[in-house]
Amino acid sequence: MSPSANHQESNHAGKGPKGSKQPKPQPKSDNQADEIIGITVKKADNFPQWYQEVVVKADMVDYYHEVAGLFVLHPLSMFIWNQLRKWFQKHLDEMEIGEASFPMFLTSKSLEREADHIEGFAPELAWVTKAGKKDLEVPVAIRPTSEAIMYPYYAKWIQSHRDLPLRLNQWNSVVRWETKQTTPFLRTREFLWQEGHTAHLTEQQAGEEVLEVLELYAKLYEDLLAVPVVRGRKTENEKFAGGYYTMTLEGYIPSNGRGIQGATSHCLGQNFSKMFDIAVEDPASRGNHIHVWQNSWAFSSRVIGVMVMIHGDDKGLVLPPRVAKIQVVLIPVGITKRTTEEEKAQHYKKLEDIQLRLRKEAGIRGEVDFREGYTPAWKFNDWELKGVPLRLEFGPRDAASESICFARRDTGEKGSFSLESITTAVPELLQQIQGDMYNKADISYKDHRRIITNWNDVMPALDDKNVVLIPFCLDGKCEDRIKELTTKAVVEELGVASMGMKSLCIPLDQPEGIEIGATKCLNPECQGKAQKWTMFGRSY
Amino acid sequence: MSPSANHQESNHAGKGPKGSKQPKPQPKSDNQADEIIGITVKKADNFPQWYQEVVVKADMVDYYHEVAGLFVLHPLSMFIWNQLRKWFQKHLDEMEIGEASFPMFLTSKSLEREADHIEGFAPELAWVTKAGKKDLEVPVAIRPTSEAIMYPYYAKWIQSHRDLPLRLNQWNSVVRWETKQTTPFLRTREFLWQEGHTAHLTEQQAGEEVLEVLELYAKLYEDLLAVPVVRGRKTENEKFAGGYYTMTLEGYIPSNGRGIQGATSHCLGQNFSKMFDIAVEDPASRGNHIHVWQNSWAFSSRVIGVMVMIHGDDKGLVLPPRVAKIQVVLIPVGITKRTTEEEKAQHYKKLEDIQLRLRKEAGIRGEVDFREGYTPAWKFNDWELKGVPLRLEFGPRDAASESICFARRDTGEKGSFSLESITTAVPELLQQIQGDMYNKADISYKDHRRIITNWNDVMPALDDKNVVLIPFCLDGKCEDRIKELTTKAVVEELGVASMGMKSLCIPLDQPEGIEIGATKCLNPECQGKAQKWTMFGRSY
Repeated sequence: MSPSANHQESNHAGKGPKGSKQPKPQPKSDNQADEIIGITVKKADNFPQWYQEVVVKADMVDYYHEVAGLFVLHPLSMFIWNQLRKWFQKHLDEMEIGEASFPMFLTSKSLEREADHIEGFAPELAWVTKAGKKDLEVPVAIRPTSEAIMYPYYAKWIQSHRDLPLRLNQWNSVVRWETKQTTPFLRTREFLWQEGHTAHLTEQQAGEEVLEVLELYAKLYEDLLAVPVVRGRKTENEKFAGGYYTMTLEGYIPSNGRGIQGATSHCLGQNFSKMFDIAVEDPASRGNHIHVWQNSWAFSSRVIGVMVMIHGDDKGLVLPPRVAKIQVVLIPVGITKRTTEEEKAQHYKKLEDIQLRLRKEAGIRGEVDFREGYTPAWKFNDWELKGVPLRLEFGPRDAASESICFARRDTGEKGSFSLESITTAVPELLQQIQGDMYNKADISYKDHRRIITNWNDVMPALDDKNVVLIPFCLDGKCEDRIKELTTKAVVEELGVASMGMKSLCIPLDQPEGIEIGATKCLNPECQGKAQKWTMFGRSY
Repeated sequence: MSPSANHQESNHAGKGPKGSKQPKPQPKSDNQADEIIGITVKKADNFPQWYQEVVVKADMVDYYHEVAGLFVLHPLSMFIWNQLRKWFQKHLDEMEIGEASFPMFLTSKSLEREADHIEGFAPELAWVTKAGKKDLEVPVAIRPTSEAIMYPYYAKWIQSHRDLPLRLNQWNSVVRWETKQTTPFLRTREFLWQEGHTAHLTEQQAGEEVLEVLELYAKLYEDLLAVPVVRGRKTENEKFAGGYYTMTLEGYIPSNGRGIQGATSHCLGQNFSKMFDIAVEDPASRGNHIHVWQNSWAFSSRVIGVMVMIHGDDKGLVLPPRVAKIQVVLIPVGITKRTTEEEKAQHYKKLEDIQLRLRKEAGIRGEVDFREGYTPAWKFNDWELKGVPLRLEFGPRDAASESICFARRDTGEKGSFSLESITTAVPELLQQIQGDMYNKADISYKDHRRIITNWNDVMPALDDKNVVLIPFCLDGKCEDRIKELTTKAVVEELGVASMGMKSLCIPLDQPEGIEIGATKCLNPECQGKAQKWTMFGRSY
């Protein structure tokens, strides 16, 4: 696998992490210290390049030089991941879901037990065929997901209805050898995730859990990442390979108007339990055996990419305070050549004290940028690039007036606090930022989720960066045809092939207006009746 | 890879986890409910089989049916792992060591940059040669450790001495395709670990960190797992492939008198930094370049196996309270056929209240065993098998006298508390158990660490299940010869080949008695002078 051109380019773009310590890029000369090393393209002009520059220059990732489609996650990214992980794990603990760790390898034998499942994953399996210099007798694949690894054990462990529910989760990485263009966080050949696998006695119990977990994922997006999502169900075409039905969260990227899958919670029904023979005696009817109802659900490091795409701007990354490794950066200003060393030392001490107060009294993750040889302006840009939610500027004049200036990363708004109030004012402002970031994204998504009842309005809506809600018959062939029709339309008009729309989800929250048996499916070639408002769009 | 005989056998031995919920094995009939399903061999009689039975029957692992040498870790094991992980991570945070996540794949190109390193790991590399149905242009190996994956980035990120120290850690699993007999936790083809990789300006800074981390590992063993360890340095023969020197913790398994490596902290010196070209300008001498001094250090899920081997007994697992998922199990006793349903419900309510008080007021992880159809005796055995540190028995008579009976898992000691005192008495007793478990193991290790100054005493000491401290010249060839000599001796005497002794470590804590330049190396064939007391033993 040779690295792509993008990869080569990006290899030289970033500077890399400094552990959890403050980054210290070194100016080559005094002249360069003032150079602005930000994002070279506007988000609106070249979104893909903008994204690649942001994740690299903000020290989130490095492109891996050895193998295309893989990425090095820096401490900034891992901090976000761990914030999400801790939050989700707390809920798993409350739900009494145990943690397990299953091996990363499996053979084709167990994969093949569920036909749709193997068909869905086979093209992307990474196969280990050799150990040292010896060929393995039986090649082993690296898990693309762990159903086929875990369920033989579920069959062994579940002997009676009293063994139910069996609910386990694991945190690991999985490998899917993508052949499409890869993108940091969004489509990578290895990614971090959690995968929950549960077994229940009844369809209802399984169904309740699927929704409970979906709601947790939604909260994770909304409350931690400040990203709005639409809760819905996947169509048959888009559901998990081998599953019964898939519940999903669908996000929206304003810059290109594309939908993006956020996280999925699958009810596997009895498909896998039949193939893996996971059955118990029916407690209500002796001698009668029931195959258990299973779920699997996951969220992955993709969530970080969605957050970057939605919140980032022309200056770089914009982090929601709840997941920011550094929530507040303090920058000394007003230090001139006339400032004596002693004055400077005294002033720096005050900055340290402020940071300490913020940490100890308000639990704020802060850092003072004491780097020498950089102007405040350079530092402002550097921290804006890295997405720190709040900047505090503090100079001798602020010290004299016992106040401190702030600048919000999300809006650029500036103002000041009294020093006395910072341990309440800063956390309040961070909470405000968190809320405002969500609201801004939510408004944008709502504005671009168009209810369409006339087929002719579909293409203009898509071209106007919307996703669309249309009356849809739910038929798989009709869905394929809709994709073709919306692809073709572009080709005819512009002479170029462009992405057709596919179904994103059937939203749980259905608008009014479909009369079952009367309203027609929006596809003009389809004779079927509409079953549900279904969200379609160009997508990732 | 076909599963071993042991594996087949063990596949049927255990019952498996029930998430984090209380296990509920189901009796097939009333007669079987009283059957004792414990360990079938004594620890002293057949230690390997004892170990395999304990880890399976205590619901720690399942043998993986698909691929030999891999194991499923149950919630009980993962709880221990996560306790250790949280504790260690807290220290990493204090040390401001960032978390990263590097890809799991690498090509032979980067592996080969350090010759000893590739030589050390090549025989155990798992090679991915295919993705889907297509052969990869360049095969990729799964990381056996991440030096060769990470250090090209260290070369990129470290441009100046101000970028130092660079200190990153990652939690992941690594793959080493063992050809020797595998054993749960101790030798497995995939295992969980953390790997820290740091770069420093000076040898001294690197050296200080190596010892700081070694001490953390020692505390993890001593304070959390109640396992005594000897801190020492590996000989040249036994150090990390490609490293400069290796610091190690060496444990001791009383049952077979073998040493076992606990965790290692390596100073890589400048070997890797030269090969990967990680250099900075010397801040003390402009124009002069210094290759950085590097460390790597790791502890793995092996620590769990060491703990099991040391503390377990003929009844099964014995867990130190600090890492036990269930620290206290409460078992209702004295419920007879004459007890009315109402009396029983009232009594069960009291048990629930006790558990709740212990959790809320003392932070104790407890569980009440309300399972129907089992005698208290059966339950006692079941929880002893699973290693729960403290059992509380509570019957109507105890309720009447406002007291509760206890039984310690480690010593079998029984007694009682007043109900009123439990929120102080239980945590105190758990702490006592934790300390006593450590002391017992420590005494055993001290008793079996023999200082030997006469070669003829070596073999009897080994056969008497000791490890030995001998005056040693530190020469690699002499070390090889000592192994041969101690192997041969067994062959001659008993007509069977048995394990020779190898060097375990050069203890930091050196006994008196070696006069440099005067004391001879203990190997009778060696003409060299002793440099250090060195601990040798049969080992894992």
